[in-house]
Amino acid sequence: MSFVNVAPGSDFPLENLPYGIFSTAESVKSCSIGVAIGDQILDVSKVAQFFVGPELSRWRSTLTKPTLNEFLALGPAAWKEARSTLQRLLSKNESAIRDNDALRSSALVPQEKARMHLPAVIGDYTDFFSSKYHAANCGRMFLGEETSLLLHLAEWAPLAYHGRSSSIVPSGTCIRRPWGQQKPPDTEAPIFEPSKMVDFELETAFLVGPGNELGTPISIDKTSEHIFGMVLLNDWSARDIQMWESSPLGPFLGKSFATTISPWVVTMDALKPFRAENFDQSKSLLSYLRCEGPNSFDINLEVTIKPDSSDEAHTICRSNFRYLYWSMNQQLAHHTINGCNVKPGDLIASGTVSGPNEDSLGCMLELSWRGTKSIRLGNGVSRKFLEDGDEINLKGWCKNSNLRIGFGNCAGKLLAAHFF
Amino acid sequence: MSFVNVAPGSDFPLENLPYGIFSTAESVKSCSIGVAIGDQILDVSKVAQFFVGPELSRWRSTLTKPTLNEFLALGPAAWKEARSTLQRLLSKNESAIRDNDALRSSALVPQEKARMHLPAVIGDYTDFFSSKYHAANCGRMFLGEETSLLLHLAEWAPLAYHGRSSSIVPSGTCIRRPWGQQKPPDTEAPIFEPSKMVDFELETAFLVGPGNELGTPISIDKTSEHIFGMVLLNDWSARDIQMWESSPLGPFLGKSFATTISPWVVTMDALKPFRAENFDQSKSLLSYLRCEGPNSFDINLEVTIKPDSSDEAHTICRSNFRYLYWSMNQQLAHHTINGCNVKPGDLIASGTVSGPNEDSLGCMLELSWRGTKSIRLGNGVSRKFLEDGDEINLKGWCKNSNLRIGFGNCAGKLLAAHFF
Repeated sequence: MSFVNVAPGSDFPLENLPYGIFSTAESVKSCSIGVAIGDQILDVSKVAQFFVGPELSRWRSTLTKPTLNEFLALGPAAWKEARSTLQRLLSKNESAIRDNDALRSSALVPQEKARMHLPAVIGDYTDFFSSKYHAANCGRMFLGEETSLLLHLAEWAPLAYHGRSSSIVPSGTCIRRPWGQQKPPDTEAPIFEPSKMVDFELETAFLVGPGNELGTPISIDKTSEHIFGMVLLNDWSARDIQMWESSPLGPFLGKSFATTISPWVVTMDALKPFRAENFDQSKSLLSYLRCEGPNSFDINLEVTIKPDSSDEAHTICRSNFRYLYWSMNQQLAHHTINGCNVKPGDLIASGTVSGPNEDSLGCMLELSWRGTKSIRLGNGVSRKFLEDGDEINLKGWCKNSNLRIGFGNCAGKLLAAHFF
Repeated sequence: MSFVNVAPGSDFPLENLPYGIFSTAESVKSCSIGVAIGDQILDVSKVAQFFVGPELSRWRSTLTKPTLNEFLALGPAAWKEARSTLQRLLSKNESAIRDNDALRSSALVPQEKARMHLPAVIGDYTDFFSSKYHAANCGRMFLGEETSLLLHLAEWAPLAYHGRSSSIVPSGTCIRRPWGQQKPPDTEAPIFEPSKMVDFELETAFLVGPGNELGTPISIDKTSEHIFGMVLLNDWSARDIQMWESSPLGPFLGKSFATTISPWVVTMDALKPFRAENFDQSKSLLSYLRCEGPNSFDINLEVTIKPDSSDEAHTICRSNFRYLYWSMNQQLAHHTINGCNVKPGDLIASGTVSGPNEDSLGCMLELSWRGTKSIRLGNGVSRKFLEDGDEINLKGWCKNSNLRIGFGNCAGKLLAAHFF
């Protein structure tokens, strides 16, 4: 228990303590590392002097930086030490902050007064394709019945593409409907118009800790040492732009207009009680992808949509991280097997987390089956793709009989296209 | 003419003055901005006090940074002022450096004593696909005679994919042959082995100057203000890995193991005398891609290969930047048309610069027609793809009756794969 009040059902009890980067109206130009607790943020830079363990006393300066990158580079021993120090400092029985009025009022900031930023400078962003359900559905929609090749490939290798780092934004940022080339089936030439098929994709992502040298893969049994924690990720997609441009080089402008992430990084240490068995990988895997489990996690995922005209958010998808075929360990081993180097702060996303059920599909493309079905939102409102003013929010949480931890919001509102 | 000796045929006369980042044995931990002149480097940080014009006097600190990013962000007026100041400082008639022995010996560093680094922190790296010849050849090799769809698409839109920033290295860095999944035609399942089809790709790239706000495209008539200068780029490719993984998400591990760039950034101001007519774009372009010319450049490009056993580099490709269908202006307008933001230091590559002739093909894949023909290097040595120890060097230069400027080296040697 913490001396900071944590409401029942809060995403951020003492057992979570996710890291984020925030600023306040008073310190609008200076960002600090914070840790969420209840509806408050502990400003880590204000309590850095208490990190006196063997790992962090030398590297205390990493705690007062405006991004998490240097802290991420320290690795698991330092992360563990930081977590136990923070849990102690915030516990009911510890007086250091609790009884120091000046420190307490400067180090604890209400979340409603803070502005959240990206947690790290993201050098490279990679997006995987890890759900077999998503692969099977995309195959059926776009390759007719010839889905076997895609599924075959998706079972041998965790497919991925490089994403755009510059357009990653934190939860709460509004997203502008993109213009682009599209090729309707009934025209000879492509047209240039605002996208009419803007979509979300329900994903999670992990932040890389220590990197590797170029030319030296990370072997799969070492991958956990390089994975710091997780966020929710909305891979906004303009399907009409994407369909026209994607062959043979993959998605580009259909996705690079925006990617939203939740600002609080939930650490792998906090997620440990929710480890789950790996997805059944029936194929005999290639050696570098073989890994003892459990390496999956039981993370409930939900997507809500709130039309501009409505006060109510409507849940349109209920999924779970366990539905992913490939683990984060396998993704990282695959990513570096050719010698590619990763760096602290790199973001590596799961791909759409679609599950086996009709309501566990992680994007409008699947939910509306390429726009052929309407999704009812109640009050006579329905959708095939997103409309201007729609706000999408992703939620993620883990729960067992003793404990509930959550990810906070990953929200974004779609604005009308610019006029040209 | 400069008071610094410039040998005939040098890549770096007073009319060029490309920017780069260097360190020396004495200053191994501190990188400086330098400008190449003859076989010397002018250390710009040592002469920053002379930049007293209206644009730069306020922003002189950008000249003493360890990367070009802040200088890139200043834009064309500042770049022009810097160029004229540098040309004056280095000219035969200017005494400021020439006659100051102490300054001259500290500010001029022989290139052979310097180590070159990446010119900027590259946030995002994009690789276009801009040669119709390359598109046509790839279509014929991989899509049989069904090339029309790819060519059709390549004439409507400058195709591109996001590349990997972390594995971009400066000329001279050795490249490790990558391992990866491949699927030989005669096996049921993929195999995990070192690539047997390592290739180069002859490309150029430009560095972005000032960026744009997310959600606000750069209109094509403004694009020149965002393009600082050019480098040569070798997009190392492992064709067997690439072929197995690329559909539907595009190239990933087949390319992310390394990308080499030449360290000297040749500015658009230096390239101006070599402007050339646009490639004939017969299609009626969509409005946002229409642009008055000339926007191409007459840049000669060559690739040499030097086997480990040989002292001699053999030229295997002679091409020209003019062979590209899309201009850099069109690439940048397309890249941002969906609102995607670019940032100072972003690197945007041309794609393989293949031309119409048999010896103007910009990669082994095309030169050896997917490994079906041998490329003779002389002395009985031949290649289909690269072998361990091969050193690839790209060269680029512009020449008219008065003037020759060049890009320096873009070299890399292929090392044997690691043993697993």
